[in-house]
Formats: sequence, C-alpha cells, structure tokens
Amino acid sequence: MTKITPVILCGGSGTRLWPRSRAAKPKPFLPLVGTQTLFEATIARCADPAQFAVPVVVTGAAHLAHVEAQLGGGEAAVIVEPSARNTAAAIALAAGRLDPDAIMLVCPSDHHIGDEEAFRRAAASAAELASEGWLVAFGIEAKTAETGFGYLKRGEAVGAGGYRVAQFVEKPSLDKAEVFLAQGSCAWNGGIFAFRARDFLRELESYRPDIAGAVRTAIASGREDGQRFHPDATAFDTIEGQSVDYAVMERTARAAMVPADMVWSDIGNWHALLAARVCDGLGNSVNGQAELVDCRNVLVESDGPRVSVIGLSDVIVVVDGDDVLVTSVAGAQLVGKLKGASNQ
Amino acid sequence: MTKITPVILCGGSGTRLWPRSRAAKPKPFLPLVGTQTLFEATIARCADPAQFAVPVVVTGAAHLAHVEAQLGGGEAAVIVEPSARNTAAAIALAAGRLDPDAIMLVCPSDHHIGDEEAFRRAAASAAELASEGWLVAFGIEAKTAETGFGYLKRGEAVGAGGYRVAQFVEKPSLDKAEVFLAQGSCAWNGGIFAFRARDFLRELESYRPDIAGAVRTAIASGREDGQRFHPDATAFDTIEGQSVDYAVMERTARAAMVPADMVWSDIGNWHALLAARVCDGLGNSVNGQAELVDCRNVLVESDGPRVSVIGLSDVIVVVDGDDVLVTSVAGAQLVGKLKGASNQ
Repeated sequence: MTKITPVILCGGSGTRLWPRSRAAKPKPFLPLVGTQTLFEATIARCADPAQFAVPVVVTGAAHLAHVEAQLGGGEAAVIVEPSARNTAAAIALAAGRLDPDAIMLVCPSDHHIGDEEAFRRAAASAAELASEGWLVAFGIEAKTAETGFGYLKRGEAVGAGGYRVAQFVEKPSLDKAEVFLAQGSCAWNGGIFAFRARDFLRELESYRPDIAGAVRTAIASGREDGQRFHPDATAFDTIEGQSVDYAVMERTARAAMVPADMVWSDIGNWHALLAARVCDGLGNSVNGQAELVDCRNVLVESDGPRVSVIGLSDVIVVVDGDDVLVTSVAGAQLVGKLKGASNQ
Repeated sequence: MTKITPVILCGGSGTRLWPRSRAAKPKPFLPLVGTQTLFEATIARCADPAQFAVPVVVTGAAHLAHVEAQLGGGEAAVIVEPSARNTAAAIALAAGRLDPDAIMLVCPSDHHIGDEEAFRRAAASAAELASEGWLVAFGIEAKTAETGFGYLKRGEAVGAGGYRVAQFVEKPSLDKAEVFLAQGSCAWNGGIFAFRARDFLRELESYRPDIAGAVRTAIASGREDGQRFHPDATAFDTIEGQSVDYAVMERTARAAMVPADMVWSDIGNWHALLAARVCDGLGNSVNGQAELVDCRNVLVESDGPRVSVIGLSDVIVVVDGDDVLVTSVAGAQLVGKLKGASNQ
C-alpha cells in the first residue's frame, strides 16, 4: 500500500488563546498540552515510516522560523505561502508539488489528539478509501452538543468502515446539535482530510478553476531553496481564498468519511484546553508556579509570576508578559473579542 | 476645651492584603482607597487645628522612612519604637511624652473612615468624656454580623451621648454576632480610644505595672533627634507586649464608649477593601489597566500589567510584582495563610 503523505497546515493566527497565543507566536508553536508544541505533536503523530512518507508543511513567511526550529532537523518539504489564501489554495499547493498518485492526509497543526493509535487507524481507513478515489473527511465522534463545529451526516457505507457524506451541516443551533448528539448520525468535521493528489486537483478544477489555475502558475513560476519551496507571489496573491470545505468537499460527488474516536480537541479556547489537559483529582491544571486553595476545575498558565488562587471553580487564569487574563470557563469563548486580543 | 492630640499607631505588617501589602511597604502606606494612603488620610482627618493638636506618630524603624515621607513635612512628634511590643506599650510611650493633662485620641493608621464629619463629632464627644476621667472607646455601629471584630456592649448612659461599656465581647460566633446585630446593643470595637494621658498611665500602672515601669525607664533613658524620639531599647525590649484592650480597657472601672457611625472599615482583607471602594454601577472597582466584560462585584488592582476579566462575579484580582492573586470574596480571608504571603 502507498505510504500516506502528511500535509500539515500552519496558517492563521487566532486570538482565542490570547494572551499566551500572540501574532508573533501563535497556537501551533506553543506547548499547550504536555511538553511538545501542537505542531511538534502533529509531526510526531505522522512520523512512523511504516505508514507515512516525508511530510509537507504549508506555512507563511511569518511562521517559517518557528516551523523550521520545531522540525528540529527532521526531513520535510516546506511550502512558504506568499500570502494567506485559506485552505483550498494551501492544499492545492501541496497537491501540485506531490506525485499525482500520492495519498495526502491534510492535518491542521493546532489540534490535540489524545489517542494516536486511533488516529493512525482512521488514517489507514481514510487512505484506503482515498486510493479508491474518494475524498475523505475524518468524522470525529461527537461527545457534546457543540455549536462551534460543522457536522458530517453519515450516508451509505462505502469501502471498509467508511460512509458517504450524506450532508455537510454548518455550525448548528444548540437544539439541532442536541438532536445530532442523540441520533448519533452526525460527526464533527475536524478539518482532517485524505485524498489522492490528482483527485483533489481534478475536483478543485471543476468547482474553482480560478484557484486551481493560479496555484498551477504559482508552482510553475516558483522557486526552490533547499527543502523550502516558494510559490510565485504574483500568481498566488490573485487568489480569492476559500476553505477546502466550501471549495471542494461540500460540492464533490465523491465525499466520504471515516469515523474517528481519538480524544480530539481543536483547543478552540481556554476552556477546551482545560478539558484536554491532564488534571488533578479536583480538575485543576497548572502550568507554571502556582498555589491553589479550595479550587476546582481551575486552569493556571503562567510564564513567570507566581499565581495564587483561592476559592474558585471553573476559572481560567493566564499570565503572559504584560497581560493577565482571568475568565470563567463560559467566558473563554469571548477572549478573542477582548481589546487586548485584537490589538496585539 | 483642650485640643485633642492624635496618637497615630503605625505598627505591624499584616499579610491579609498580600501581595500588594508586603513587609517592606505595609498597608498604612498604600493608596488603597482613593489617592491618599491610609496613613495620609489618618493624619489629614486629624489635621483641623481648631480641634486637634500636633499629632504623635508611634512607629518602628522599619517604617520610619515611609512615615516621614508621607508626613510630607507636616509637623509631628515621631516616636520610634525599638521593637514591636503591641499597643499598650506603644500608647504608653506617647502618653509618657505628652503633658499629663493631654487628651489623647489613639488611631490605628490602617483603617478607612468614609464620613470624616462623623469621625470628628465622635472625637469631640470622646474627648469630653475623657476630660471627665473616662477611658473611651469608639463604638462603631455594627452594619453586618461580623465575626472578625470584638464588640462593645452598651451600658448606662454617661456624659453627653456616651455610655459605660457593660462588657467587652471577644470575636463572637456567627450566631452570636447575628443576635448582637438584631438587638443593636453592641458596637464594633475599632481600636480607636480617647483618654487623658495621666488616666491611661495610672490605669496601666494598676494592671500592668511592668509595662508602665519599663516604658517610664525607656523614656527617661531615651534620646531626642529633631522631631524623632528614640526610647531606650534595653528597657523597652524587656516588655511582654499586650494589647491596650487586654491590658487596660477590659479591666478599668472607667471604660466608656461613644457611638460612631462613620462609614468605617478596617480594610481587613481584599473583600473589605472592595466594599470600601467607590464602585461602578455593576459593583466593579479597578485600579490600574483593566478590561472587564460581563463582570459584577470584581476588584482589580494592578501595579502594571493589563488585567482582562470575563464573566466573573465576586472575584478579586491583584497583580503586584511577580505575584498574581485571584480569589473569591469569601476566600479573601484566607490570603494571609498563602505560602506567598507568609514567605515574603
């Protein structure tokens, strides 16, 4: 069986984990769960040479130094995007640089996956479907009625353990999310995809020929520099960006999904990070110097100062540089809207 | 009528307002309410020359620099205690240095008094009783069922608007405090006292002749240095310290009280400070750079870093140097027991 080529996407700079995550050092490059950064863990999870080929990393110039430092000398093809043009274009860059028959596994670099065995099993299933011409999404088993994710509705069974995607569902209302959870017929769309390079490029050509064409030109006029590849900026910058979901997955007749139950989190905010952390018996998790008295379900994250917390539950305290954030777990979703987070 | 001599006690170094209050700069010398420090406000409150004589400040060598800086050139007699020997000895030092007929008004320097008019009216009543030979305590009108204060039980009326103290009650249980509050017969003992210097010394001589004698010797062998007076350390250090309540007030047959309803707080912890502060319409009070979203009854005190708080109620956040404290208002009373607060 063909080895799987990991395609690691390192774009964007969220504000939802401010003040730890900042424009200059965003989420993928921080050791948020355990001692590895999320990027390092993403690379390590796809490092078994029996299953995976050398990875492709797609990133921007702003994060290149972090990427190369955290690759730590490991082999990788690094594609440096001239500008951020969303995921369809980023994936097309990788697809265009690979052998047309390569099986790509597209992975965001800022998620946490607790069960790596389950990840690798799902990757193997997805790769098998991809080799039969399917465009495959990981359908992450829904554990709660999340309203922050898109959902994949399961259709008829295909291949060994896969399903057609009957419908891509936008972020639902809470009522709808609760129905999905109760029915068990919908999974979270975690943004992890597998397909053959040529299948992806063919479908992109059908639905967004403008993106496919501009990427082709950007690659043809691009420049190699050691393990880095620089697509041509003039061509690439013209692209009107779109997500791979909208541009391809929701339109293709060949969308499939494989179920994945792998202790997954997108670490979409500080509350999600607390949930992904190993906590003490009272649900507390501390990173840095701290003293907790009468606390439950408290996350402390400090880059230096000692943090003392008394008598609180479901609270997150983050100290980073000249910023201190204190939020309820419910308030964690508002962090990106803080003045501090927007004027970094 | 004789003018009142304020005797301002600047001793101790509490840990209950850690990390803002520290051994090197304790509570009296911090601008906790408004722009004046508590010490400055204490001096200012007794500064009307129509009612008050030049104040006596009793302090230790460790705080002398703060005292003199915050007197700002204002006239005062400063007594520098060789060691901390509790309030009976501190007051005796002041009494021994004053004219025997002087009316002393003993004031802690770390309390907040919101209604200065009421304070001055109570001081005038207390001074009048003191001039008749009473040892007078301010009986602060109880507003809540506090278990952290001693109480004064009102006896028969004496003088104009005063009462004998029927009983000094130690810090009560909550049940007992609730009964006191309902009955209205008990007031808080706020540690503010008025008496003639010779009356105080005579009573101290009766009940604690050891303290009275050692203070006499320490004064006789003391040394003047400008407006400072240094009692003799050898004599003073032998004293077994006791509070003025135990040593004199609870024993004397001449204990009286004057009611005082003057928006008083001992600012005994961060919760008490929040209560003493002028707050916005949601009960929040901020000192420093902060952004509050969906917060009620939140106190932020920062010496520099920006503090962002989301979705919390009844929470206190203090940033000082390399320490961050986050506590529920209920937890505020445990601050002094933190490792950080004890190992400053």
